This record gives sequence, structure tokens and C-alpha cells, in this order.
Amino acid sequence: MGPGPLSLNTVTVKERWDLAECIEGCARHGIPGISPWRDVLAAMGVDAAARRIREAGLSVTGLCRGGMFPAADAEGRRRAIEDNRRAIAEAHALQAACLVMVCGGLPPGSKDLPGARAMVRDGLEAILPEARAAGVTLALEPLHPMTCADRSVLSTLGQALDLCEALGEGTGVALDVYHVWWDPALEAQMARAAGRIAAFHACDWLVPTTDTVFDRGMMGDGVIDIPRIRALAQAAGYAGAVEVEILSHRWWREEPEEVLRLMRERHATAC
Amino acid sequence: MGPGPLSLNTVTVKERWDLAECIEGCARHGIPGISPWRDVLAAMGVDAAARRIREAGLSVTGLCRGGMFPAADAEGRRRAIEDNRRAIAEAHALQAACLVMVCGGLPPGSKDLPGARAMVRDGLEAILPEARAAGVTLALEPLHPMTCADRSVLSTLGQALDLCEALGEGTGVALDVYHVWWDPALEAQMARAAGRIAAFHACDWLVPTTDTVFDRGMMGDGVIDIPRIRALAQAAGYAGAVEVEILSHRWWREEPEEVLRLMRERHATAC
Repeated sequence: MGPGPLSLNTVTVKERWDLAECIEGCARHGIPGISPWRDVLAAMGVDAAARRIREAGLSVTGLCRGGMFPAADAEGRRRAIEDNRRAIAEAHALQAACLVMVCGGLPPGSKDLPGARAMVRDGLEAILPEARAAGVTLALEPLHPMTCADRSVLSTLGQALDLCEALGEGTGVALDVYHVWWDPALEAQMARAAGRIAAFHACDWLVPTTDTVFDRGMMGDGVIDIPRIRALAQAAGYAGAVEVEILSHRWWREEPEEVLRLMRERHATAC
Repeated sequence: MGPGPLSLNTVTVKERWDLAECIEGCARHGIPGISPWRDVLAAMGVDAAARRIREAGLSVTGLCRGGMFPAADAEGRRRAIEDNRRAIAEAHALQAACLVMVCGGLPPGSKDLPGARAMVRDGLEAILPEARAAGVTLALEPLHPMTCADRSVLSTLGQALDLCEALGEGTGVALDVYHVWWDPALEAQMARAAGRIAAFHACDWLVPTTDTVFDRGMMGDGVIDIPRIRALAQAAGYAGAVEVEILSHRWWREEPEEVLRLMRERHATAC
């Protein structure tokens, strides 16, 4: 079985194209899915974006991103929860398959990792009623452990599935090969993930990697055995899109027409 | 209970001091342990080094490092095993508490992570008889997942303990706070590690981290709750040294007298 349909995460071309150009680009290149980040969504306006995406015949494979719950004080945590409520409303307006949750790292100055994890869980519990009411799946994304301090104390698929089980209906996981490929527990946890995978993100791990955040590779240019992980996801029942999300100074400089052309090619040959 | 006795891993001052200067520096600063890397050991000669370390009254908390088993062909894997046999002999000559094993990443051009893990296990099995005969504990060091491609497919404490259980007598783990602090399974795995911890390495995770290998921090300058992890190790029965191993372009430029002074201070206040 080949990979599911292709989707463009807008961050992949974020320095060259706004949302209108992404929508037109997907239509022109025969890419059936799109996953906007909230900044480009806000720039176009949610209602206009929802209409144009629908008119272009694209499916919205996710909205990036909610989360970032930990904060140094209660007011900061309250503001994060309010912002997540707005993100749920936006995901609902777009009929997005999920709201991708990048849960957040340690609050500034803190070394309290268990405390930050508790803030993540508290934040998710606070917004879950709105998510359920809106029919928006909260897709918990485990991020690579190298981002634990500043982006996500949610680091492994196993930890994300534990949270899904604790929180119940309305939660799932966003699986990004970049974040999980190294995990010795991946096979075992993927078997547990049946019915929980809400998104599948692809890019590649480059050798060497020169930046802990912005040096991701195009599929096929690195060392991740993407077809193997994709097959594990399909064996767990995932039949959705392969969403290409590449945070990379190198690719952000590239002409987007070439990025989308290569995405399509590598979707066929390296995923 | 405070931290165990301090030890200097020679890589911490590698651009300024040879092994003789490290030995003298430890004696002068009242640091009772030392852990040499094999390059500085070879430069002095193993027998001379063993004698001078003994004369200085230092204990050898480890020898860095064995491992690096995966290779593209059988000849490469055979050479790695031969080199590990020499490392075992050196650790024996130094009466080192353990030989630290950095197991190796993917062979060049390979995406076969399960295959590389099998090469690691095969390599360890090949050298274990010599290690047992020499009374040298092979301390399997899980390395941070960001090093999986090029340095270590052994990524978590749980995975290291699984290997210890499979291999049996003569194996243990080298626990470096930098590599394990983010792990959501750390508490549970530390409980499993009783009797298996052969070394405890300390440094810190800086925010931001600008290099995936050479930007480690001095204890107390980052976000790792070192006393918490050290207490978990002690609860698992570890009563050995706190070995300071800082791979850092920033600290390599520093005057070693100042590095050792600060190590002692932070050993008392941040470990």
C-alpha cells in the first residue's frame, strides 16, 4: 500500500508564500491537502481562508498549532488556554482534521519538568470540552527530545498515548517521522496507537544536523526510513494524508514551485 | 545525602591539558577521580598513565570510550571489535571502574536502524568474554536521541537496561544527565537500574543549545534538575562518583584552572 494523499504544511514555504499562494500552489501542483499555520491564517482571515480552501477543493489535514501551556504564572497559563480556545474555533471553521498540539517546554527559569508536564495536562483538560463540542480532535504531537526545554515536554509517542488514554475522547496523536524515528519503543507504541493517529507529518533527518529546530530535510535526503514508519501507521489503521512539514532555512530560501514539485516527486519515491 | 565524589573527565579540558596536566590538576584541586579518553591515554602511554594516576592517589571512574560497532561491511565491524578488545585491556590496566560504551550510529548511507541496533548487540556479545575475563564492566551509555544517526542508536535508559538484561553479567549503564533528563520514562527505568549503574556523568542542557554535540553546559547553567536525577541514582544504589564531562567549544577555550575551580563549586551547589 502506498502513502496516503499529499498535503502541504504552509510552514514549508513560509518565507515565500502567503496562504493564498499556498492554496493556488496546491491546486496547480495537484496536491489535495493543506495544513495552515495560524499566522498565515490570521493574515487572510479565517472565513475567507475557509471559503477559498473549500473552493479550491482542498482538504485541511490539520491546523498548526495549539498548545504551549506551561507558563511562569497562573495568568500566563490562563492566557495560553484562551488562545487555545480561539485555535479550536479556527480549526472548526476550517473543518480541519485536527488541531496539532505543540504542548510547550519548561517555563522560563524553571527546571521543574514534572511540573511543566502537569501544566500541559491541566491545559489540555481545560480546553477538551470546547474541542469535543466543536468536533475538533486535539492531536498531541510528541516532539523530538532535543526540544524538551523550549518547545515540548511531550517527547515520545508512548507519553502521548498515555495522555490520550487519560484524557479520553477528542484526543489523538500527530505523528511526525522527524520526532519519533529514533525511538526504540516506536514499533510497540505504534501498535498501541490504533485509532489514535490523527496526522502523519513527513520530512527527514539530515546528517549532520546543524540546528535543533530549523534544519529539517526533504524526504529522501536524510536517514529516516519513512516507508517503514508510514507502514507502521497504516498497520495501526491510519489512512490519512502525508503532510509535508519542513522547518528549514535552506528550503525557505528555495523557489516554492520547485519545493512543491520535489515534494510530489519524493512523496512517490521516498515515502 | 550529597553527591558522590567528584571526577574529571579529561574531555572537559581537552584543548588545553594533556593527561599529565589533568592528573596534576585533579591532585591540586582536591578532585579524587579521573576518567581519561583513549586519545590522551595513548599519548602518555597506558603503563605510565596507570602508574602516575595511582601515584597521585586518583581513582579511575571510567575509560572513554569503547563502542562504535556499526559499520558498512563485515571488515569494518571486525576492526571495531578488535579496537574494543584493546580498550578493555586499557581499562583493565588502569583499574577503571568501567569502560564507557558509545555504541555507534547508522553506518554511512544506511537507514536501517534495527540493523544498526543488531550490530551493536552483536559487537557487545563478541567482546563480553574478554570484558568478563578482565573484570571490566561494559557501561552502556544511552546517548541523547539527537545523536542517533551518527553516534548512538542506543537512545534511552530503558533500551540500555534491556540490553544489560539480555547480555547479563559484566554489563551496566553509564548515566549522563545530559542524555536522559528529558525522558518521561526516567523514574520508572531508574527503579529498574538498581545494581546496574556503573557511572554517573554530569553537565547541563543550555537554552538555547546551538550545537547537537559540542554545546553542553557547566552544571547549574542550564535546565537539568541534576540533584533530582542524582537522588534517583542513589535510590537505585549508586554510591559512586559524579564525573564531569562537558563537550563544549565555550568551555574548551576557558583556562582549565578556572574550569576545575568551578566544577568543584558546582559539584557542591548544583549536583
